[in-house]
Amino acid sequence: MSLNDALKIKDWMVKIRRHIHQYPELGYQEYETSDFIKKKLGELKIPFREAAKTGIIADIKRDGTKRIALRADIDALPIQEGNDIPYKSKNFGKMHACGHDAHTTMLLGAAKILKGIKRGPNIRLLFQPSEEKLPGGALSMIKDGALKGVDEIYAIHVDPDIPIGTIKTRAGIMMASADEMDIKIIGKGGHASSPNKAVDPIYISSLFVNAVQSIISRLSSPLSPVVITISAINGGNIYNVIPENVDMKGTVRTLSDNTHKMVIRMIKRLLKHITGMYNAKYELDYRIGYPILINSNGGVEKFKDVCKGFLRFKIMKNPIMGGEDFAWYLRERKGAFAFIGVRNEKKGIIYPLHHPKFNIDEDVLPYGAALLAKLASK
Amino acid sequence: MSLNDALKIKDWMVKIRRHIHQYPELGYQEYETSDFIKKKLGELKIPFREAAKTGIIADIKRDGTKRIALRADIDALPIQEGNDIPYKSKNFGKMHACGHDAHTTMLLGAAKILKGIKRGPNIRLLFQPSEEKLPGGALSMIKDGALKGVDEIYAIHVDPDIPIGTIKTRAGIMMASADEMDIKIIGKGGHASSPNKAVDPIYISSLFVNAVQSIISRLSSPLSPVVITISAINGGNIYNVIPENVDMKGTVRTLSDNTHKMVIRMIKRLLKHITGMYNAKYELDYRIGYPILINSNGGVEKFKDVCKGFLRFKIMKNPIMGGEDFAWYLRERKGAFAFIGVRNEKKGIIYPLHHPKFNIDEDVLPYGAALLAKLASK
Amino acid sequence: MSLNDALKIKDWMVKIRRHIHQYPELGYQEYETSDFIKKKLGELKIPFREAAKTGIIADIKRDGTKRIALRADIDALPIQEGNDIPYKSKNFGKMHACGHDAHTTMLLGAAKILKGIKRGPNIRLLFQPSEEKLPGGALSMIKDGALKGVDEIYAIHVDPDIPIGTIKTRAGIMMASADEMDIKIIGKGGHASSPNKAVDPIYISSLFVNAVQSIISRLSSPLSPVVITISAINGGNIYNVIPENVDMKGTVRTLSDNTHKMVIRMIKRLLKHITGMYNAKYELDYRIGYPILINSNGGVEKFKDVCKGFLRFKIMKNPIMGGEDFAWYLRERKGAFAFIGVRNEKKGIIYPLHHPKFNIDEDVLPYGAALLAKLASK
Amino acid sequence: MSLNDALKIKDWMVKIRRHIHQYPELGYQEYETSDFIKKKLGELKIPFREAAKTGIIADIKRDGTKRIALRADIDALPIQEGNDIPYKSKNFGKMHACGHDAHTTMLLGAAKILKGIKRGPNIRLLFQPSEEKLPGGALSMIKDGALKGVDEIYAIHVDPDIPIGTIKTRAGIMMASADEMDIKIIGKGGHASSPNKAVDPIYISSLFVNAVQSIISRLSSPLSPVVITISAINGGNIYNVIPENVDMKGTVRTLSDNTHKMVIRMIKRLLKHITGMYNAKYELDYRIGYPILINSNGGVEKFKDVCKGFLRFKIMKNPIMGGEDFAWYLRERKGAFAFIGVRNEKKGIIYPLHHPKFNIDEDVLPYGAALLAKLASK
Repeated sequence: MSLNDALKIKDWMVKIRRHIHQYPELGYQEYETSDFIKKKLGELKIPFREAAKTGIIADIKRDGTKRIALRADIDALPIQEGNDIPYKSKNFGKMHACGHDAHTTMLLGAAKILKGIKRGPNIRLLFQPSEEKLPGGALSMIKDGALKGVDEIYAIHVDPDIPIGTIKTRAGIMMASADEMDIKIIGKGGHASSPNKAVDPIYISSLFVNAVQSIISRLSSPLSPVVITISAINGGNIYNVIPENVDMKGTVRTLSDNTHKMVIRMIKRLLKHITGMYNAKYELDYRIGYPILINSNGGVEKFKDVCKGFLRFKIMKNPIMGGEDFAWYLRERKGAFAFIGVRNEKKGIIYPLHHPKFNIDEDVLPYGAALLAKLASK
Repeated sequence: MSLNDALKIKDWMVKIRRHIHQYPELGYQEYETSDFIKKKLGELKIPFREAAKTGIIADIKRDGTKRIALRADIDALPIQEGNDIPYKSKNFGKMHACGHDAHTTMLLGAAKILKGIKRGPNIRLLFQPSEEKLPGGALSMIKDGALKGVDEIYAIHVDPDIPIGTIKTRAGIMMASADEMDIKIIGKGGHASSPNKAVDPIYISSLFVNAVQSIISRLSSPLSPVVITISAINGGNIYNVIPENVDMKGTVRTLSDNTHKMVIRMIKRLLKHITGMYNAKYELDYRIGYPILINSNGGVEKFKDVCKGFLRFKIMKNPIMGGEDFAWYLRERKGAFAFIGVRNEKKGIIYPLHHPKFNIDEDVLPYGAALLAKLASK
Repeated sequence: MSLNDALKIKDWMVKIRRHIHQYPELGYQEYETSDFIKKKLGELKIPFREAAKTGIIADIKRDGTKRIALRADIDALPIQEGNDIPYKSKNFGKMHACGHDAHTTMLLGAAKILKGIKRGPNIRLLFQPSEEKLPGGALSMIKDGALKGVDEIYAIHVDPDIPIGTIKTRAGIMMASADEMDIKIIGKGGHASSPNKAVDPIYISSLFVNAVQSIISRLSSPLSPVVITISAINGGNIYNVIPENVDMKGTVRTLSDNTHKMVIRMIKRLLKHITGMYNAKYELDYRIGYPILINSNGGVEKFKDVCKGFLRFKIMKNPIMGGEDFAWYLRERKGAFAFIGVRNEKKGIIYPLHHPKFNIDEDVLPYGAALLAKLASK
Repeated sequence: MSLNDALKIKDWMVKIRRHIHQYPELGYQEYETSDFIKKKLGELKIPFREAAKTGIIADIKRDGTKRIALRADIDALPIQEGNDIPYKSKNFGKMHACGHDAHTTMLLGAAKILKGIKRGPNIRLLFQPSEEKLPGGALSMIKDGALKGVDEIYAIHVDPDIPIGTIKTRAGIMMASADEMDIKIIGKGGHASSPNKAVDPIYISSLFVNAVQSIISRLSSPLSPVVITISAINGGNIYNVIPENVDMKGTVRTLSDNTHKMVIRMIKRLLKHITGMYNAKYELDYRIGYPILINSNGGVEKFKDVCKGFLRFKIMKNPIMGGEDFAWYLRERKGAFAFIGVRNEKKGIIYPLHHPKFNIDEDVLPYGAALLAKLASK
């Protein structure tokens, strides 16, 4: 089994990828995507069952004793595509701007390659919905038995920051935990000319936004990376009225459980005391999302091993502050997650993930399919 | 000429007031209101001309040498009426929640009373549009000649905080200047997990909202009242993206020209330096609105004088931070502005101005008409 | 009794004033000053008794039924005199930089004038110690009976901002309440490179200094003047250690009891919550000082009255934010406090109170003595 | 050459260490310490020369071609010793609280061991003054030729956080850059009751202390550790006067040159704009101190190698935010720095560096001497 096997089915994969790309669907609404995958699995004569509402669990039985899972995510984003391409998104306001169309295609490619090889570990194919929304479809897949009988699990993610033909990962902590929060500061409205008769939620919110910075600068270890971003603030709409409330949204990213807990505790404490100062109130809806993504040493070694001869393999010096719900699987099983390069400046493939002009060098499809197939073969 | 003259036409006034109340129109759109007033002036055989788009200037010639102006504002507010009354607003989302229906009616009442009295000063009736929107319809009325040949000017405003039968005013500074501003903090958007690659307009806005407080607490004389309220803040709407911009609105109220100038200068300086700290930019649209309202001593004395015998007259100890575009007239001519009580707890008349349940005790109509008539008679 | 009577004893007063000026003493240490006054009272044959440690209460009996008190303060300031004059302070680091030497002299002058006039109200002379230190020697004087049998009380204060020959006062609120506070923010020291292991009292103090501004800008009525100044902040002294504590000092000035109470409540609440945010602690020593100084209407009328013919009398438009312990007497009795001009640019008398080069135009001495004598004569 | 060789001279070393411990001297004042070392070198017949004012450069010639440098720092700290021991500091207010007495002793021990062995690399002994004060005596030593002809350089530092018998280091970045700064905020003094006539440096400083946090939380990469601590703030000392100035001190620690430059740039920019907001001024004395300490891979390998058989060797997972002027040598030559354990709870050796009760388990002396000797032998 070699890259050649994957290159032979490149056209088949390109067709699949472009089809999926044209019909992007948001998390837990991937009905047509799911049906399309099922059709392809049917053509490959691979048995499957539904899971996690719009997800699919499929199994390829082989002669080995252990079972290796490969996962692709299948959902798209609420972004209007900005590419002018023949296979542009036909679903208005939705786009495969995070490459899940490629992930799904490469996994189908790997399945097609592996189908004919009877020797080797048993293979579990996971087509997972809703990676983009906290807490991530991975949790539902696990609940529905995705990891039952599985020994190891692997996944790859396209990366427009590294060139085509490259793999990047690291042992241990690789990606951050990612939480979301909604905060409401509840003041007391009033006329703008009498602030003393109101409780001004805009001023109080400004104190909170400001004090949040100290969680990072004064309260967490300088050696434990953490991000807290208040990403939205909305309150009031006219000139002469102090509004009742201000609504904020935000995200928290950490690379350590202790820091993670401290940050949550401090956000609550800051809200309690800052509103307490002014007799205001608050509501906090804090949603713990993806956990820290931790690759097993063996999983990363296997990546390094199978890359030999056809993909440049690089160890990341530092983790990144992005999050990924694949972390849930790695809490339960050994394995690893890696980035696979899709950048190609000559082809104009330079836009970042989530950008309306994001695209991939489709040469990644055979690379990825071969890589997944090899990961499942030892 | 006495209160009795006004009581005789109370029913006529109630009908007029309820009609206007049912058809509230916003600033510079008071077409039907204006037509209705013209019809009434026609019935009274008082000549008039149009001014300030939807305003009216009418004159009653008498045997005196001087000319006294009386002014009523005629516009309504973008508020949905919350009263359950037979004459409830029929224009959805609009309401005479600031009593301009009563002001207009009382001025028509005064005109009806004065019409038959040939002795006394000449009278100028001003039906002014758009009091509620900066910089106020008063400016346009003046531009269109409202004060030409006028010696003194007076106006009254209903007040639900003082009981029916009461007048309240003060010599000198009585009401604040009132400005509006729109501020845009222009940062650089980015992924919420990489704040160092973005310029965070929410954090920068929080520093501005906070620093604004110092203009009052550290930079203005403790004896020169001033209010700066940031009344709206809006930026961002999702969890994992730092937005490009934050938009703020606000108002500034002062009782001294020096403080007024200082506040404007400081808002610009704070914006310049706070955005400069983080390589952000800003846009400031600062609109100077109503000036400080300053009653002449003689004007207030006249109010006191004419109240004798039928209205309780009170001197306000302090100015108030509310604004009123009648201030423009008082920059040009002697005269005064006063509040006339409409509160009546027995009748449930307890709601503040601009409240969806605001209403007046209609007994104010004869009081106000008589008061205006008397003000114009000396 | 006229200004002439006072001019006759001008030389006597100048000698007294210059003597006192040379031997300034701080609050409750005015031993020599007190002895000097007693000697002068003895020479005038006016009976007296000691009060408030270093103070003196003296009485001049006359044929009237009521008793009028006149008060002078006798303490000096911890300032090194900067004037090059023959009667320069001989007590190093101490100076009569607030004119109490003149106040004492003018009261002795008034006593000398009044001594010979048997007709008129009885007179109480109060030579009060420690006006400069909270809560003011006035309280001790009252405790020791200074106001027993007194009907009215008056005092004057030299003022280098208004010209010689001028009096300035106002009915009602004239001067602010003045409190002092000491605040300690108790953190947890540590190495500067590990802020997460410490509790940083410097950062926490910065939040407090900042939030204090909102008490003025958001929580007090714009029409109720108030000043809160944090006037000292001290913590830490080396580069690589986070200190345990930060100490702050401050003052609070108000012109309304409601605002006064609100400010004290809010300072406590801000300290509680701001330290609560970071698990720090605080100590607050808040000392209520002079109350708001409120002149009675009649007292101010009397000042106006007696000024006729020899002093320009002006009504102050606004109160001032300075404090004065004479306010304690006016809480108990009718009367008034006024400023008496000592400015004379030709003589170089231009420096403000508490300045090392402060001085008075000594022509004020007969003016003040006559004024006090007249106040005590009706 | 083995640990045994070092154990044989333990008593000699203990005597030396205790002597040095009793006579601690501050940076560039190590006259007696320097004389004592010279005496010992004389006894060992090792030629030396003076350098960096109170430092010493000594050379042991052997048959090898390369030359290896070993460095000890010799200065003490301005701390009053809190230990009750027979060899307690006799210099009031000074103490070897950072173990430099042990470093010096271990280097003399290594010299004594190596003296008799003719085979091996040439050896350079560096007794360096003033490690504790920025920018560190290392710079002066280098200027005076300390590294001339040197191929590699090594040093060890006692560590009370790890047990006796342990070595800890890491390849690449191991310790932070460490800078110091003095900041003066120049306002305009005035009476505390008239903040509007002053420029309040305490309020302005609070804005700066607060905004500094954003350099870490918003402007630096979450993956690039950095500490900025304002460690001292001092301004004002009485209640009713706004002071002219506030003085602050602080330190900056970074592990990346880019972050280092950004922090310096931002501190200047924040000061410029925050003072600009209020027409205040500032003075910044920013002193770049120790650079980032970067061990060469080979240097760390050699440490690992020579520890075999007698010391536990551990790789540090993360760098630390502390600084060390040995970094200057490692900018010029290959080599490494390591921590050597001195903790021994049974002996009560538990206090941290710079603590008045800091002490070492003297068993470290033979360990350290042997380790240094071995490092210089390959």
